[in-house]
Amino acid sequence: MTTSPLSRRRLLGTAGAAGAAGLVAGAAGGVAGTALAGDDTPPLSTVGSTTVMFHGKHQAGITTAPQSRGHLAAFDLLPDAGRKGAAALLRRWSRTAERLTAGRAVADDTAIALDAGPSSLTVTFGFGHSFFSRTGLEDRRPAALDPLPAFSSDALDPRRSNGDLWVQIGADDALVAFNALRALQKDAAGTARVRWQMNGFNRSAGATARPMTTRNLMGQIDGTRNPRPEEADFEQRVFVPGGGGAKDPEWMAHGSYAVVRRIRMLLDDWEELSREEQERVIGRRKDTGAPLTGGTETTPLDLEKTGPDGRPVVPANAHARISMPETNGGAALLRRPFSFHDGFDEKGVPDAGLLFVCWQADPLRGFVPVQRKLDRGDALSPFIRHEASGLFAVPGGCQPDGYVGRELLEG
Amino acid sequence: MTTSPLSRRRLLGTAGAAGAAGLVAGAAGGVAGTALAGDDTPPLSTVGSTTVMFHGKHQAGITTAPQSRGHLAAFDLLPDAGRKGAAALLRRWSRTAERLTAGRAVADDTAIALDAGPSSLTVTFGFGHSFFSRTGLEDRRPAALDPLPAFSSDALDPRRSNGDLWVQIGADDALVAFNALRALQKDAAGTARVRWQMNGFNRSAGATARPMTTRNLMGQIDGTRNPRPEEADFEQRVFVPGGGGAKDPEWMAHGSYAVVRRIRMLLDDWEELSREEQERVIGRRKDTGAPLTGGTETTPLDLEKTGPDGRPVVPANAHARISMPETNGGAALLRRPFSFHDGFDEKGVPDAGLLFVCWQADPLRGFVPVQRKLDRGDALSPFIRHEASGLFAVPGGCQPDGYVGRELLEG
Ligand code: HEM
Ligand code: HEM
Repeated sequence: MTTSPLSRRRLLGTAGAAGAAGLVAGAAGGVAGTALAGDDTPPLSTVGSTTVMFHGKHQAGITTAPQSRGHLAAFDLLPDAGRKGAAALLRRWSRTAERLTAGRAVADDTAIALDAGPSSLTVTFGFGHSFFSRTGLEDRRPAALDPLPAFSSDALDPRRSNGDLWVQIGADDALVAFNALRALQKDAAGTARVRWQMNGFNRSAGATARPMTTRNLMGQIDGTRNPRPEEADFEQRVFVPGGGGAKDPEWMAHGSYAVVRRIRMLLDDWEELSREEQERVIGRRKDTGAPLTGGTETTPLDLEKTGPDGRPVVPANAHARISMPETNGGAALLRRPFSFHDGFDEKGVPDAGLLFVCWQADPLRGFVPVQRKLDRGDALSPFIRHEASGLFAVPGGCQPDGYVGRELLEG
Repeated sequence: MTTSPLSRRRLLGTAGAAGAAGLVAGAAGGVAGTALAGDDTPPLSTVGSTTVMFHGKHQAGITTAPQSRGHLAAFDLLPDAGRKGAAALLRRWSRTAERLTAGRAVADDTAIALDAGPSSLTVTFGFGHSFFSRTGLEDRRPAALDPLPAFSSDALDPRRSNGDLWVQIGADDALVAFNALRALQKDAAGTARVRWQMNGFNRSAGATARPMTTRNLMGQIDGTRNPRPEEADFEQRVFVPGGGGAKDPEWMAHGSYAVVRRIRMLLDDWEELSREEQERVIGRRKDTGAPLTGGTETTPLDLEKTGPDGRPVVPANAHARISMPETNGGAALLRRPFSFHDGFDEKGVPDAGLLFVCWQADPLRGFVPVQRKLDRGDALSPFIRHEASGLFAVPGGCQPDGYVGRELLEG
């Protein structure tokens, strides 16, 4: 029934097996507000009370079901912060994330999220290429952080790209998410300043009658063919192995690399296409997400099938054809994007699209080869524009006595 | 138990009595996606399936419980649109709003909201001062649309203020809301163009254990002392009477006037105050929303009570004291805001605050006298900045055979 590998129900079923951040659902989730005596109102739903554990083998927010609200932010260290300042910041950040994701308030809490439960809040921390020179840790910089190659379709704004530190916040409530963003920004005062910050969203929990793969602002079902936690090679594709793997430093054990792209959708052009033309651009139906070669959302694409005109039913330049691992030497990445919409420009053109975030054990065997192929021949290219880019090393999760990045900063 | 007059539960109980737009909750709400045979998954929640009727005595989106996602947009008519073009646009807009709020798709639907239910979508239409000269309808312009007075604390951006036409969209799902915004923008093509557009949000349905008044980004419970539909004078304070009232044209029967202010919160300054200082600025506690003179959220403020120092416990310049009808000759308005957060500037200062929308039968006996008093002596003033302003005549609701504004445009 559930078609998305990242949907809430599937996650509940498979999180443990996949070693994903544990989900604690239901009443135990520590809703803050005090129950009024004699109030027989049942809890509204599990939206507020769902807790995603901060501690674990992996950081939360990678295999966690995409939340309805997201903030991405990059921070740059102040000139004199150094390794010590960075370590102290990551310690503060981890403590704040731990408290907030458990539905507790931080010390100087401004009460924005006071009555709400944790609302599936996750906070995920990463390190950018420039972090290592700023902290004298060049010798520990993973080779995987080498700058991404330039792509012919790039139109990147350097001020909204990269950064020393990266934070991804997700929650099923906008006040909970904003509260976390402000708390982390305050923790950074004196050590790091915001370099860029972006807001995103996904469908609300409960907007569809049953859990479904979400849609993006082009109207496509987006997220169908992601690696699934129950697949044998999931862990190996998405996460750096314990011990650090052949190419990775030990401090990246159980970590992952995040590629972040702000991809503007040229919606006015896109919407001039007919439904049929739009479907040929992707190679899938818009209503059900099924391949044009038939079946349901989860049926594999039939790359060989031809139409009455003798041409492939899924065109050679269809996005879903070009990007699939089968045509990519097995390259695989876990896509976990948010949509964005930052208003309209003076001409009424929406500044909207995808905050594309993808996760992989190695960008050179994930994002890079796929994007290289897309850059050459994706039918979707005329309708999108990559406007910002980031690449971050996201270490493994921490235990209650540690903090994210300790193995890097104190190792 | 429920303290906010606009909370979902209260609305369900009182909507009929107040003549508010009817709410149809639950399974009948027309969720789009087809149920898979043999799928025993219960509907996730009523988030998606809740329908707010488009047709009715009043337009929806005024007494409707505030949704978690909102879009405000102003449109200007193109030079040659005229009264006929405007009438045709309002007819298209009403038809689109009717379809989308019922959970149905529009003709050239791009599928963004395809699987989602109506998700409490409301669409509300209004006319600005400039609409009437553009359409040769000056003689029908309500006196109530005369420009708002300037206030000493105004820092208004004219490009983000006013406009010929105004649309307010609210939904409990971001994809549903965006889909409606785009559909209405497309309907306007050739007749009107977007003048400004703003995005807002409120707490998600279900983020708290029971329905509660929402909080704003200063962390205050905001919305407590709103007029309540069950109060005898509610209708008279918020809506123009049937027939049009003494000062209003007949086409405004059962309509209301919306004042829209984009109010930036100077959060960095605000958060330098201690909790106690913050509470004295408003005159209420942050945790429970109760007056500083004691009780619960709904206990009336005791204006006379003094502290050990002989001074009033609720300071003379406290926001909740200055703005209450009892100190204002009875002026009353229905506040129904969304929060906004449009990122950070280069210094890391959040561009965040309140998309303040308030509703009243007469702005000169609602927003204007209250804002005049606040402008002179509100303790909150140093922490906020009014950045944009609009005033719109929002006619009554329409019936299935009509459209919003027909009595103005064809009368
Ligand atoms: C706005 C930009 C993009 C849009 C709208 C988009 C949309 C889609 C859609 C609708 C699908 C088919 C459904 C699914 O499997 O999820 C898909 C698949 C996929 N996309 Fe994209 N995509 C975008 C950018 C990218 C980028 C930048 C990459 C990586 C460089 C990428 C990699 C993939 C992969 C790996 C698949 C799965 C292919 C398969 O295994 O069948 N996409 N995308
Ligand atoms: C960012 C700006 C503002 C903030 C943060 C804010 C916050 C609050 C808070 C926390 C309350 C007390 C709780 C409640 O009754 O809802 C309140 C009450 C109120 N506010 Fe504001 N407010 C703002 C702007 C305004 C403006 C511009 C007006 C109208 C001109 C206004 C009119 C009122 C009224 C009428 C009340 C209820 C007073 C009563 O009857 O007790 N507020 N506001």
